[in-house]
Amino acid sequence: MAGSIDLHGLLTTDPVVATAGAGLLSDALRDQAVVVGEAQWQPPPEDSVDALLRVMADRRRSEANSLALQRMTAAGADLVDVRPAHEALGLERGTFLHAGPPLEWERASGPMRGALIGAVLFEGLADTAEEAERQLAAAAYVLEPCHHRDAVGPMAGVVSPSMWVYELRDEVHDHTSWCSLNEGLGKVLRYGAYGPEVIDRLHWMNSVLGPLLQQAVRARGPVDIKAVIAQMLQMGDEGHNRNRAGSLMLLRELLPTLITADGSSTDIAEAVRFSGANEHFFLNLGMPACKLSTMAAEGIPGSTVVTTMARNGTDFGIRTAGTGDRWFTAPANTPEGLFLGSYGPDDANPDIGDSAITETAGIGGFAMAAAPAIVKFVGGDVPFALRTTRTMYDITVGEHTAYQVPILEFRGTPTAIDVTAVVRTGTLPQINTGMAGRVAGTGQVGAGLVTPPAECFTQALDALAEAAPAAATS
Amino acid sequence: MAGSIDLHGLLTTDPVVATAGAGLLSDALRDQAVVVGEAQWQPPPEDSVDALLRVMADRRRSEANSLALQRMTAAGADLVDVRPAHEALGLERGTFLHAGPPLEWERASGPMRGALIGAVLFEGLADTAEEAERQLAAAAYVLEPCHHRDAVGPMAGVVSPSMWVYELRDEVHDHTSWCSLNEGLGKVLRYGAYGPEVIDRLHWMNSVLGPLLQQAVRARGPVDIKAVIAQMLQMGDEGHNRNRAGSLMLLRELLPTLITADGSSTDIAEAVRFSGANEHFFLNLGMPACKLSTMAAEGIPGSTVVTTMARNGTDFGIRTAGTGDRWFTAPANTPEGLFLGSYGPDDANPDIGDSAITETAGIGGFAMAAAPAIVKFVGGDVPFALRTTRTMYDITVGEHTAYQVPILEFRGTPTAIDVTAVVRTGTLPQINTGMAGRVAGTGQVGAGLVTPPAECFTQALDALAEAAPAAATS
Repeated sequence: MAGSIDLHGLLTTDPVVATAGAGLLSDALRDQAVVVGEAQWQPPPEDSVDALLRVMADRRRSEANSLALQRMTAAGADLVDVRPAHEALGLERGTFLHAGPPLEWERASGPMRGALIGAVLFEGLADTAEEAERQLAAAAYVLEPCHHRDAVGPMAGVVSPSMWVYELRDEVHDHTSWCSLNEGLGKVLRYGAYGPEVIDRLHWMNSVLGPLLQQAVRARGPVDIKAVIAQMLQMGDEGHNRNRAGSLMLLRELLPTLITADGSSTDIAEAVRFSGANEHFFLNLGMPACKLSTMAAEGIPGSTVVTTMARNGTDFGIRTAGTGDRWFTAPANTPEGLFLGSYGPDDANPDIGDSAITETAGIGGFAMAAAPAIVKFVGGDVPFALRTTRTMYDITVGEHTAYQVPILEFRGTPTAIDVTAVVRTGTLPQINTGMAGRVAGTGQVGAGLVTPPAECFTQALDALAEAAPAAATS
Repeated sequence: MAGSIDLHGLLTTDPVVATAGAGLLSDALRDQAVVVGEAQWQPPPEDSVDALLRVMADRRRSEANSLALQRMTAAGADLVDVRPAHEALGLERGTFLHAGPPLEWERASGPMRGALIGAVLFEGLADTAEEAERQLAAAAYVLEPCHHRDAVGPMAGVVSPSMWVYELRDEVHDHTSWCSLNEGLGKVLRYGAYGPEVIDRLHWMNSVLGPLLQQAVRARGPVDIKAVIAQMLQMGDEGHNRNRAGSLMLLRELLPTLITADGSSTDIAEAVRFSGANEHFFLNLGMPACKLSTMAAEGIPGSTVVTTMARNGTDFGIRTAGTGDRWFTAPANTPEGLFLGSYGPDDANPDIGDSAITETAGIGGFAMAAAPAIVKFVGGDVPFALRTTRTMYDITVGEHTAYQVPILEFRGTPTAIDVTAVVRTGTLPQINTGMAGRVAGTGQVGAGLVTPPAECFTQALDALAEAAPAAATS
């Protein structure tokens, strides 16, 4: 029937109409009893239209983003060592790493101040919290983002030179990343607590746990953390706020060499008990694994893929593959979710921690569909968990090749956030997160859901537009 | 508007019609462009109509079934000890327990014969497989179902007096159940293998693993197995063919007292390694926990709830709450699924094992929706896994109060199979299962999906009808 127009029954059957944008059309259709499917859509912010056009016209973009996705999913992540931060990171006495974009004491939130005070006490640089606070306020120490040293830290993310860190390697891209050891839940340094029990636990972790884990890892050889993440997504974890299966699998990997390590049987039993009782034991391995994934996408000209999302408790900051080390920051939102004990929304600090590296790499909130039970911890309901993962495909370049969601018929997790997609759709990345108490010394008050401020993405888009070659837009 | 008839818009809006049974009506409606929802339904088999009417008219039934469900979900399951079967079960030398309903050597399948030969060798009653086979064929030993001793055994389920067993207690109903220790996968006794490596492993389990586990459990105190099952369903396990999270959680519970047990560090390290490497370590705890659940429903007059589903490799047998110890048997079906290596459908033995106790208690195949990743092991696809759990609600009395399926918005698993519902709907219980090689000595050849023969249920229904009071039908 060449030459004729096939109407596919358009004029002879009842129409089913898909609409997008303003509701006027769909409302009018519904009034006429027409079946309407509405697509979520809103126009991009007016201020960003020019930048969006310029960046989307950049001919490098598509290939650069494909390369970013390919590198992110190809990156390996092997746990190869456990050692003190001064040795692993070359961290000098008097320097303290922290989560998120750069920050000064004056602008630091309660939990960040609490964690810094605790770290100063732990290093023996001050005898009292008041003295530590005075020193910090007098800028006696150097504060530096973990990300500037290829490290990541959950919540306040404070790392001091004496603390032990996990060392992970991506042999594919020859990268190394680090993360502190997990302290457990409740009153812990990363949530801004700095009481004697916090400092004592850190000393035990330094003198007993760290050296035993070092022996276990060195005797065993590299532990494939990427494989554990792939497995945990099949076991109800999303790798950010639910790490139950991951923690058990890590424990299993380390056990044979841990229990035969050179040490007192009491110390070994306590190390096993401490690690086994901690459902977030794995988070501090998953985070540097995700950091290695995003590091692989750094420095790709023309790519609009997000390589960092991190919060310091005051600001939320992002970085992109096409704009190098530059941070795009805006005031952090405060998570909404479920609270421990008698804590409530007024007790919650704004969003804090490098752990949004999990969402940046395609797990965490992006893999919520794999972890429906997490809604009992962070809030929301099961349809929300499924919807969240499905929605994140709208703002990512593609699917992870190793991380799959069984309930979505083993579809790969949505991976490599595209700044242009975020600005164009108005859909922000979904982050699952712990909530720190607003007041220094409190500790954890709950867990919940949060998104980055949209301004981080519009700023990044503007910078990407500046970097886009004018010629490519013609 | 008392007195008037409210038509709810029946005559003014387009009808949406639900149909059941023969397709004639729904086809006619569709021809008239009416929206039709079709419910799966088929008439009960003609031979069973009278029995069905009599049993369903039994006034005791509803309350008896509610009681059965209530008892099944209330039953506890604590691991309290690990000890030899001769001590725990009073198992006499020369007596061998096996899976499923009663069976004689002549009718035994290849894997059942292989396991019995292996157990005779293991007990030192014969020096060669040929000698063992001759003795067994000459009825030199007593064969008895595990279920007759309140025990359960996976696959061939052969338990001999020297083997160590887990001992579980339901303190709510003062019941005890037992199960052998899991040997791992591949060439193992329960799949009918009996080579030297199988017998050597059993000896190591007896001399090293059993005594260490005994020390660990006794030093630790009771382990709440019901709580582990509840957790594993939130971690992608269904508790029959997927026990990954359950095995890790059990290991974690036993570790602190296992690694400090009185024994050589080499033995302890090997016990930890062996247990940690076995993804089905937990199955042998989940099964007796399920047995305790179904034991709680035994002996309720008028109840049509299934209390046992078990297979001996030749016959499938069921028992019900209202008919006591009587078995209703029919030839077992052969599972369909995925095969290991070069094995294929011709290598598979008919359905075997007491592990269908998991489905009888509301997990396993009934909880497939909690374990979508299992379709990579037993076959089917993710929609099938979801549909299976949803369908099982049609043939069960209610929902489990402790075992929930996150993806179904934490709905309790379908629990307490109702014989009348199975016969009435023609829907058979869905079982996930391992597949044993048909030839003695082979071992595991795959894993798949299977249902009981319908005759077990129609026979049980007939017996329930005989037991129903004639007066109650008036």
